[in-house]
Amino acid sequence: MKITCSRQNLIKGVSTVNKAVPSRTTMPILYCVLINAEADQIKLTANDMELGIETVIEGAILERGKIALDAKLFFDIVRKLPDNEVTIETGESFQTKITCENAEFKLIGQDADEFSPLPFVAMSDAVTLSQFTLKEMIRQTIFSIADNDSNKIMTGELFEIKGDKFEVASLDGHRISIRKEVLNNQYEDRRLIVPGKSLQEISKILPGDADKNVNIYYTDNHILFAFDETLVVSRLIEGNYFQIEQMLSSDYETKLVINRRMLLDCIERGSLLTSESEKKPVIFDIKENQMELKIRSFVGSMNEIIPIQKEGADLMIGFNPKFFIDALRVLDEEEITLYLINPKAPCFIRDEEEMYTYLILPVNFNEGDY
Amino acid sequence: MKITCSRQNLIKGVSTVNKAVPSRTTMPILYCVLINAEADQIKLTANDMELGIETVIEGAILERGKIALDAKLFFDIVRKLPDNEVTIETGESFQTKITCENAEFKLIGQDADEFSPLPFVAMSDAVTLSQFTLKEMIRQTIFSIADNDSNKIMTGELFEIKGDKFEVASLDGHRISIRKEVLNNQYEDRRLIVPGKSLQEISKILPGDADKNVNIYYTDNHILFAFDETLVVSRLIEGNYFQIEQMLSSDYETKLVINRRMLLDCIERGSLLTSESEKKPVIFDIKENQMELKIRSFVGSMNEIIPIQKEGADLMIGFNPKFFIDALRVLDEEEITLYLINPKAPCFIRDEEEMYTYLILPVNFNEGDY
Repeated sequence: MKITCSRQNLIKGVSTVNKAVPSRTTMPILYCVLINAEADQIKLTANDMELGIETVIEGAILERGKIALDAKLFFDIVRKLPDNEVTIETGESFQTKITCENAEFKLIGQDADEFSPLPFVAMSDAVTLSQFTLKEMIRQTIFSIADNDSNKIMTGELFEIKGDKFEVASLDGHRISIRKEVLNNQYEDRRLIVPGKSLQEISKILPGDADKNVNIYYTDNHILFAFDETLVVSRLIEGNYFQIEQMLSSDYETKLVINRRMLLDCIERGSLLTSESEKKPVIFDIKENQMELKIRSFVGSMNEIIPIQKEGADLMIGFNPKFFIDALRVLDEEEITLYLINPKAPCFIRDEEEMYTYLILPVNFNEGDY
Repeated sequence: MKITCSRQNLIKGVSTVNKAVPSRTTMPILYCVLINAEADQIKLTANDMELGIETVIEGAILERGKIALDAKLFFDIVRKLPDNEVTIETGESFQTKITCENAEFKLIGQDADEFSPLPFVAMSDAVTLSQFTLKEMIRQTIFSIADNDSNKIMTGELFEIKGDKFEVASLDGHRISIRKEVLNNQYEDRRLIVPGKSLQEISKILPGDADKNVNIYYTDNHILFAFDETLVVSRLIEGNYFQIEQMLSSDYETKLVINRRMLLDCIERGSLLTSESEKKPVIFDIKENQMELKIRSFVGSMNEIIPIQKEGADLMIGFNPKFFIDALRVLDEEEITLYLINPKAPCFIRDEEEMYTYLILPVNFNEGDY
């Protein structure tokens, strides 16, 4: 194999596929990036068997072939090369010569035939979204997947397709995050569970352009995201996802409209007094036109009054501050609406069209302490 | 005590003194920042007994007094407050109320009398430098202090005052870094060993203004840096520093002028092939008008030719790439000059006025391998 391409294109390609290079594995070949110039394109591929990424880079093929190179070393070298044309040429026993200006590197590559190809996913009947929309839907829900493996299903996100409705949801036992969008076509109903880790990596490499699309395809075991010159394939999590609709309710006793930034800043400040392990709640003491936020911990206390518009009954309710912070951080609205029933029932943050819904369970507290 | 000041001034003050708050200590009071408004100024102080920092912040004293507050918590809270006027008021049992707009925090402080004051250093006969110069002198030498405690003296930097000459130097057994400046006054000869850790912290908080000065004072045990509204006191390391002058030499067999950036980039690239633990050298193969750099390791090899201007004999010599990278990174010159004798003798990088001198010992290598 002999190819030439600009250092810029190489960097772009390698940093895209790099997200699928495992940091630890028992299969050394997985540490490699595959450079494949057997056909008319230069393709880079990495594959940790959960997530695989393939991208096409611009360049010239002088001699067809393929080679697997240690991804980290190759990436580090490419980044440090002068900003000019790079030539990659393979010789005997997988020896690979990388030249750029006066610099010449010789690396020992690995047999490209040992590299596991990406699982096959037929690219027909794409679910199509703008890159921006998918990236936002992931960002606005990913934080509430469970962070440990005790329930595998909770470490993934539900992708639900129902006619022309597309819903992304996650839950961790204390909260649920849901984002909905309307698609341009009708599709067969389908529920997929996509690993949160895969979505995090996809989010990082998805450019997020509002004018460009991402096409989503799926089989029983895999999901494929195709955008620009890149394909990302992730394994799906097996099992049946929770019936989220049954956990939601549109009843409420208290409805309040509040400035998102003001509420977020206040809870962030207060939560400095308590650690995640100490689990001291933030108390919302909701009265007419104002809400007092209170936090007590062994290092001190915070009280702050913020203005609200309220309908319905007064209420005093406590939450894990982190859960509110997480939800408030991903929203973009200046004002948000909270729906509450009583101190034991979940709180909902949602917009009128229900494009987003956040359910947060309250926590018990001793009213006398506040 | 009751004081008010802007959040901005508080942040500036706390982030300055914060560098002297230990991350671990057996004396809980050292985790505190002292707020002292007993006289006409609001002073913040932190002191880990090695390094102490005191700074004056602008604000109004409504009631004199002092209090010690947990530095990390106080800093975190101040950072998260709205950008407005902050009031700090102490009550009974060291309870402290921090208010800003609608937010009110109550923290449990500690007895300010338990706080260790900074060691006394008489502020007379200052050695005066511009902030910029001192910051540069530290930056350009600090990297070659020894990073372990096996020889305490090597973890410090030599500050040598000799008439109107000021010299900062460090060494770690493999290399020496020296920076010299001329002072505006004559001083009594003195050699001080300043802990590298203290200099690193001072470097971070020294604004580095070329038009503003820093005054340096010292006793047998301490050194004091005074700049802007801030005093920094560090303990000195006891002992006699090495006689560096005896290790230097102005003889050379080979002199070469080289583009600093080009040499640095090339060594940085090549060093990707080898880890610090593997200790593979970079070989300089010096010929007429060109130098070939070579690195061989078990993952691969690099060769690169770069242009030089040479006087004297051809030479092949090997170095630890890290030592060259460290020295080349801190220099600002476009072109630098290397002085070499033979493959076993130290290499010197220095300018004509000897404002800076870097000595780097070569390493052994098997010439047949390259």
